[in-house]
Amino acid sequence: MEVGQRDRVITPSGQARARRGARITLASIAAEAGVSLPTVSKVVNGRADVAPQTRARVEQLLLHYNYVRPGRRTARRAGLIDLIFNQLDSPWAIEILRGVEDYFSEQRRGVVVSAVRHGSARPTSWTSALASHDTDGVILVTSELTTEQWTQLHKQSIPLVVIDPANLPAPEVPSVGATNWAGGMAATEHLLDLGHRRIGVISGPEDWLCSRARVDGYRFALERAGEVCDPELIRYGDFQHEGGFTRGNELLALPDPPTAIFAGSDQQALGVYEAARQRGLRIPQDLSVVGFDDLPVARWLSPPLTTVRQPLTAMGRTAAEMLLNLIEGTKLRTQRMELATDLIVRESTAPPRGSSSR
Amino acid sequence: MEVGQRDRVITPSGQARARRGARITLASIAAEAGVSLPTVSKVVNGRADVAPQTRARVEQLLLHYNYVRPGRRTARRAGLIDLIFNQLDSPWAIEILRGVEDYFSEQRRGVVVSAVRHGSARPTSWTSALASHDTDGVILVTSELTTEQWTQLHKQSIPLVVIDPANLPAPEVPSVGATNWAGGMAATEHLLDLGHRRIGVISGPEDWLCSRARVDGYRFALERAGEVCDPELIRYGDFQHEGGFTRGNELLALPDPPTAIFAGSDQQALGVYEAARQRGLRIPQDLSVVGFDDLPVARWLSPPLTTVRQPLTAMGRTAAEMLLNLIEGTKLRTQRMELATDLIVRESTAPPRGSSSR
Repeated sequence: MEVGQRDRVITPSGQARARRGARITLASIAAEAGVSLPTVSKVVNGRADVAPQTRARVEQLLLHYNYVRPGRRTARRAGLIDLIFNQLDSPWAIEILRGVEDYFSEQRRGVVVSAVRHGSARPTSWTSALASHDTDGVILVTSELTTEQWTQLHKQSIPLVVIDPANLPAPEVPSVGATNWAGGMAATEHLLDLGHRRIGVISGPEDWLCSRARVDGYRFALERAGEVCDPELIRYGDFQHEGGFTRGNELLALPDPPTAIFAGSDQQALGVYEAARQRGLRIPQDLSVVGFDDLPVARWLSPPLTTVRQPLTAMGRTAAEMLLNLIEGTKLRTQRMELATDLIVRESTAPPRGSSSR
Repeated sequence: MEVGQRDRVITPSGQARARRGARITLASIAAEAGVSLPTVSKVVNGRADVAPQTRARVEQLLLHYNYVRPGRRTARRAGLIDLIFNQLDSPWAIEILRGVEDYFSEQRRGVVVSAVRHGSARPTSWTSALASHDTDGVILVTSELTTEQWTQLHKQSIPLVVIDPANLPAPEVPSVGATNWAGGMAATEHLLDLGHRRIGVISGPEDWLCSRARVDGYRFALERAGEVCDPELIRYGDFQHEGGFTRGNELLALPDPPTAIFAGSDQQALGVYEAARQRGLRIPQDLSVVGFDDLPVARWLSPPLTTVRQPLTAMGRTAAEMLLNLIEGTKLRTQRMELATDLIVRESTAPPRGSSSR
């Protein structure tokens, strides 16, 4: 068992270890910041006697180089990483967890799972969730990472990777996502190929980047096919069943309703299924539906759902690999990995009614 | 921070602590077993020089009284409990995890989540999964707990609670389940009340106790209503979509098919939905369907699924509470808790066709 795990002081031997691994050293950061090595050490160790401007400059460089305290780097004793979800009610969660757990079980590390929000009554700071135990690193599945939180973890020398299928985190935060724009394009091209021309799209909240990227992929596919993009056919809602049901009903109530709907999530697609059923429309005969995510339930729906697969388990595994690199002090090849989405064609899509007469 | 966490020797002060808490002592176990205190200590500490018969008798008593090593009992340093699933691919998992995580976050303990099986290629012993870190206790979600595994944990003084919606573990293992028999009865009575007389049932594997209990509840409801129970209408399959689809097709292909099907899980119910769709049968007009579990997807199905709610999150929380009692050395009120199932009526059930003419 290693000692010094809780050691917050940068020792010469710690620096030597860092140098051996060709990692960034405090000396090189001091040089780049134009300050003395003791000043950098003070910043790293959270001492008060550093001018605010100097501290800011040094912290920025520490972030930039992903500097991790050598003491932490060699401390393997925790044998644990933390996987933190916004909430544990998303069907995504288990898919991501599987990828993370699978990877770290190979590495003989335990995965501590926690949720930031336990209902509105008891909001918890996710950084405080780490207080109960030592951790080697954190994977955060969220759409909300503040600079303060990121800095707080960095001050504790805890490496962090964000899995964020929804947004692009700040560029200095290592993160994993999916190719939302390409997914939106693939879904739309599939429907165009089947002969659909009036294609509705329901996306997630309008201020989420993933929503916008998918709609832009949809627009691009229409444009490339020489089709007009009717803004009436573009709707934004929440990613839940309710969003799909409400927006689906709006689309189907239009004077010239779409013959196909591309939903922003499988749960939204379920809402569209229900909106169609309540209007006596059969899927796919009367309405084609494409989802997004490919949760396990997609293939069990009636009819089985054509959907854009977001490789959540692979995203979990990728984030785990990136985190282990950070824990071991290896430089990341890239701060942002986007894994490819993939169109899975099942039985919820078909040529539109009367398309043979086109 | 307490010392002595890794102390495997029963010290006099440890015994004194145990006595203060009115817990079972090694002396009383020695007395009951008719052996000396040093002999009991040897068994507890895994020493070889004890006659097999004596060892067996002492271990049985240690199990019976839920004896936990005092050193372990006062060692709070780990701050972690382990939640171990057979596999992380069940939609149950996230429901149970939410209950366990919610409880232990209040207790400021972390929950380490792991899976025993990572595909058939890499079976892992779940007890070895604990090797990477210290743990205060284990919640196992499984249908397969061997006496060897249980004894192994007990030898390490690690308290264990099993969540097992499928089987009754050995009586000495603290466990949490659900009232499967009552759930089967409630589902069947609901269909009888609607006017159905030919009610098919698809249950899980025939050798699982939960499958049998649900079918027995179904039989009892029919009997109480004075209806004949046609053995042709009782099918066993796996709990997955496939089981529901295959057995559902068999039932619907009968010369005198059922007008309602009670499925053993929501996933099976999804399979029945698909079997019905492929035959052009509408739910609930042509066929009523009841599921079991009430996973979140049940209310998003088209039509929303009537189902027997298994309170998975509450089961997780109950197991967590039991485990904390064991960790703190409090005697459990009962070794087995069965939480009530609850019929949730949605839109997949209706009176049978032509029932108004009955």
